[in-house]
Amino acid sequence: MNFKALGKILGKIMILEGALMLAPLLVSIIYNEPLRYKLSYVFPILALAIIGFLLQLPKPKRASLYQKEGFALVAMVWLVITLFGAIPFVISKDIPNYIDAWFEIMSGFTTTGSSIISDITAVSHSTLFWRSFSHWIGGMGILVFVLIFIPESNDGSSMHLLRAESPGPQVGKIVSKMKVTTRILYLIYLGMTALQIIIMCCGPLIDYNAVSDALGSEVADAYQKNKVFYALLSSFGCAGTGGFGFIPNSIQYFTPFAQYVMAIFLILFGCNFSLYYLILIGKAKQIFKSEELKSYFLIVGVAVTLIFISLVGKLGAFPQTYTTEEAFRHSLFQVASLITTAGYSTTDFNVWPMLARTMLIVIMFIGAMAGSTAGGMKMSRIVIAAKGAYINVRKLINPRYVPKAKFEGKTLEEKTISDVFTFITLYFFIFLAAIFLLSFDPVNGSVIQIVSDAGSYDVTHGFFSNFSAALTCISNVGPAFEAVGPYASFAGYSAFSKIVLTLTMMLGRLEILPVFILFNPRTWKRT
Amino acid sequence: MNFKALGKILGKIMILEGALMLAPLLVSIIYNEPLRYKLSYVFPILALAIIGFLLQLPKPKRASLYQKEGFALVAMVWLVITLFGAIPFVISKDIPNYIDAWFEIMSGFTTTGSSIISDITAVSHSTLFWRSFSHWIGGMGILVFVLIFIPESNDGSSMHLLRAESPGPQVGKIVSKMKVTTRILYLIYLGMTALQIIIMCCGPLIDYNAVSDALGSEVADAYQKNKVFYALLSSFGCAGTGGFGFIPNSIQYFTPFAQYVMAIFLILFGCNFSLYYLILIGKAKQIFKSEELKSYFLIVGVAVTLIFISLVGKLGAFPQTYTTEEAFRHSLFQVASLITTAGYSTTDFNVWPMLARTMLIVIMFIGAMAGSTAGGMKMSRIVIAAKGAYINVRKLINPRYVPKAKFEGKTLEEKTISDVFTFITLYFFIFLAAIFLLSFDPVNGSVIQIVSDAGSYDVTHGFFSNFSAALTCISNVGPAFEAVGPYASFAGYSAFSKIVLTLTMMLGRLEILPVFILFNPRTWKRT
Repeated sequence: MNFKALGKILGKIMILEGALMLAPLLVSIIYNEPLRYKLSYVFPILALAIIGFLLQLPKPKRASLYQKEGFALVAMVWLVITLFGAIPFVISKDIPNYIDAWFEIMSGFTTTGSSIISDITAVSHSTLFWRSFSHWIGGMGILVFVLIFIPESNDGSSMHLLRAESPGPQVGKIVSKMKVTTRILYLIYLGMTALQIIIMCCGPLIDYNAVSDALGSEVADAYQKNKVFYALLSSFGCAGTGGFGFIPNSIQYFTPFAQYVMAIFLILFGCNFSLYYLILIGKAKQIFKSEELKSYFLIVGVAVTLIFISLVGKLGAFPQTYTTEEAFRHSLFQVASLITTAGYSTTDFNVWPMLARTMLIVIMFIGAMAGSTAGGMKMSRIVIAAKGAYINVRKLINPRYVPKAKFEGKTLEEKTISDVFTFITLYFFIFLAAIFLLSFDPVNGSVIQIVSDAGSYDVTHGFFSNFSAALTCISNVGPAFEAVGPYASFAGYSAFSKIVLTLTMMLGRLEILPVFILFNPRTWKRT
Repeated sequence: MNFKALGKILGKIMILEGALMLAPLLVSIIYNEPLRYKLSYVFPILALAIIGFLLQLPKPKRASLYQKEGFALVAMVWLVITLFGAIPFVISKDIPNYIDAWFEIMSGFTTTGSSIISDITAVSHSTLFWRSFSHWIGGMGILVFVLIFIPESNDGSSMHLLRAESPGPQVGKIVSKMKVTTRILYLIYLGMTALQIIIMCCGPLIDYNAVSDALGSEVADAYQKNKVFYALLSSFGCAGTGGFGFIPNSIQYFTPFAQYVMAIFLILFGCNFSLYYLILIGKAKQIFKSEELKSYFLIVGVAVTLIFISLVGKLGAFPQTYTTEEAFRHSLFQVASLITTAGYSTTDFNVWPMLARTMLIVIMFIGAMAGSTAGGMKMSRIVIAAKGAYINVRKLINPRYVPKAKFEGKTLEEKTISDVFTFITLYFFIFLAAIFLLSFDPVNGSVIQIVSDAGSYDVTHGFFSNFSAALTCISNVGPAFEAVGPYASFAGYSAFSKIVLTLTMMLGRLEILPVFILFNPRTWKRT
């Protein structure tokens, strides 16, 4: 294990995190927050800078990294940046408990968006900024991750390509080879985020009357005044497909204009970024050949239609009364928000008819496209798994059958299919294991009150709560159902459950194997 | 497609089913039931005999079957015997609706045990017998299925071995080669069932006082009088790991003696039958080498312990008050009943603490050993999947790593692991698809009242109901949770949902692929 080289890279990333923390510090200064809030960033910035600097000092004998070191590094980086990233919440006392704070920032960096904050109005601007900014940084990090390990082209099955790498790839070399592409992808990410911020600022962002009615005109005025701030935060959340709320009730109080803009940008951020790269280099026609893109839009279309029908046709009773436009908007927004695993909500979908809710659960499993900032199993894996299953049946019908299945124009190798099946199996096993571990929590069976646009109602923390909590964390979505629905928080869970869910988010984000590698003693054996 | 040869085998099986129907006819005569009940068996017996005979007439040019024909045949046989097996329920008017009747008999033959009958006391003895007898026949059928396709030895991964078969195996040849072993396995099955019936008859079967208190002394007297009948039915259910109830409240009114006997026999029937074969041929020592057996007992032990602790330690509130012995007995019985996917219940586990319920859900996914009459994913697949995941991580840590993993003493080939992952992925996909299709049902959101040993309480038909209904059907367990729990029935589901669940049971029972083959048009193309 090349500890010195690992330390060098880790140190650089720590310094980078320190630098990024200057942004919330600036927010704290702009909003003239008490000293405590400023210090809550100054201390970790100093710590990150000093430790990061010290890690640069030893000279590694070998600059390159082996594959296992690369994997372990990725998982280690996520651990370290979240453990440090949680500190401001604790010092500022916005989230006094460290485990809660770790849950929150892991939820931020993994672009999950599940929150343990019960009262969002009690939280400072700098904390709100750091939470949403962590989504944006996390989204960026995922793009790096995808890029480093999937250099040639993204045929959607990262697992396959990860392993197809020659033994002991030299991360340094790949990065330099990839530097140009990386920069272009970052520019796309940056550009799209900027575009969204601008568009969000052009129209009415927050529904003044609704906020005024619900929270008073003073609050409405304050929200109006901070329009740019909220446009910034909501765009960070869309770009990273994160989904942390920053005013009460997530996106419920946003205007229809803002909700439509967010829905469209969410769907765009759920697309494979290499497609935008193709547009930039003038090969726009090629993107229509992408099977993954077609499947993605197909699923979005089917899901929006079914949910819209179930809401308009009242397939099952639910308390809200929507106009047709509202029913369409909420259907579109919730599908966009949950398939991209962002997790924003415009209404309390927790009380929707069973068909609508089950459809949402299905898309939470699937997720959006590979090579995007979204979580979930990824559209490409579903397509490959379906083709793989078909091949298996064909082979049984005719043992001499030679599979000619293709995906994205390339022949689908058995190895690729097998890796996808492996991934999906592990995904379900981890998901089930998380549900099992959550069943130990004393919160099970307790009754909590939810107040939402559906009125006020009681829910029991039952199996469906744990099921959806585990799903929302492994797929990096954010809200779950029942007692941990869009209008509730994860605050009720015990510390143990929060740690389980935090690690589940990390496993989901890093697509499982790197985390296993980090925690496997063999990784750290001298070779 | 060799239709004539297929027809010949199908015809023979139809004649066999007709012959087996003589048993419930005899019961109907013994209990002197009205003519309608007798005719409800006479008509299908005649139909089966005549059609079966006619199918024997054409002379096939080729006696052998190709692999795809073998698979399609198996699935076709299950369709035909259930479609005919449902007829008596309809004619006798015990289950007047044909789709309900098909659900019920599919639940019987697949040894699931989910029932759509709301009032079991209104059902005739012949119907009760035919239902439980179908479990026993189904269990036998599974053994044949396992044997035909897994001739060499059972290393637990039937999928692998199915495909490892040489192209176009000649079913006739294999059967003749296997005839001796088949007979021995049948004798074991028969002998163990007989042993259980005898033991059940030796002690007190039904708790006279409890029945007398709950249902009156007349009913208690009647149950007492029919002791042998009930010993027979409960043994059929244990042997086939079916689980249909035949008196109210499943096994709640059985004596502790009878409950312990059933629990032990259930665990025994959940073992791979080749282990008993080893004992018979004097190689008893070898069975202790079986990794699958060890894992099976380990899971049973862990599950019983955790559930016992959660009941005794009151981890979460639940309405029943158990003595320590009762808590242990119910824990043991429910684990035995659900891991073997029988589905009998001695108490209302639907209201147990979350930990206990989640543990039961986990074992419902796992199921017992391959080569037994149990359903579920099977213990062996879980072990192989775990080893496969470990190998994947090791390979990433060290690309030159050559896996040396073994299962049951044999080297674990990549193909085997890959097939297991494929199976588990398809299992989860079908499970999710079933949940999705159930979400269309108008029953969702309705409230029903449950009366059980936990008192009387209302439950809403929510997501957990559909989740557990889909699980209980694909794993061939029987009862589910919430609105379709052990003290409820599947009667509330719409006809569409019942068809979905019926096909889910069949997919689970035949381990997915044969059903896909049957419904694939390519199977039926002329070659």
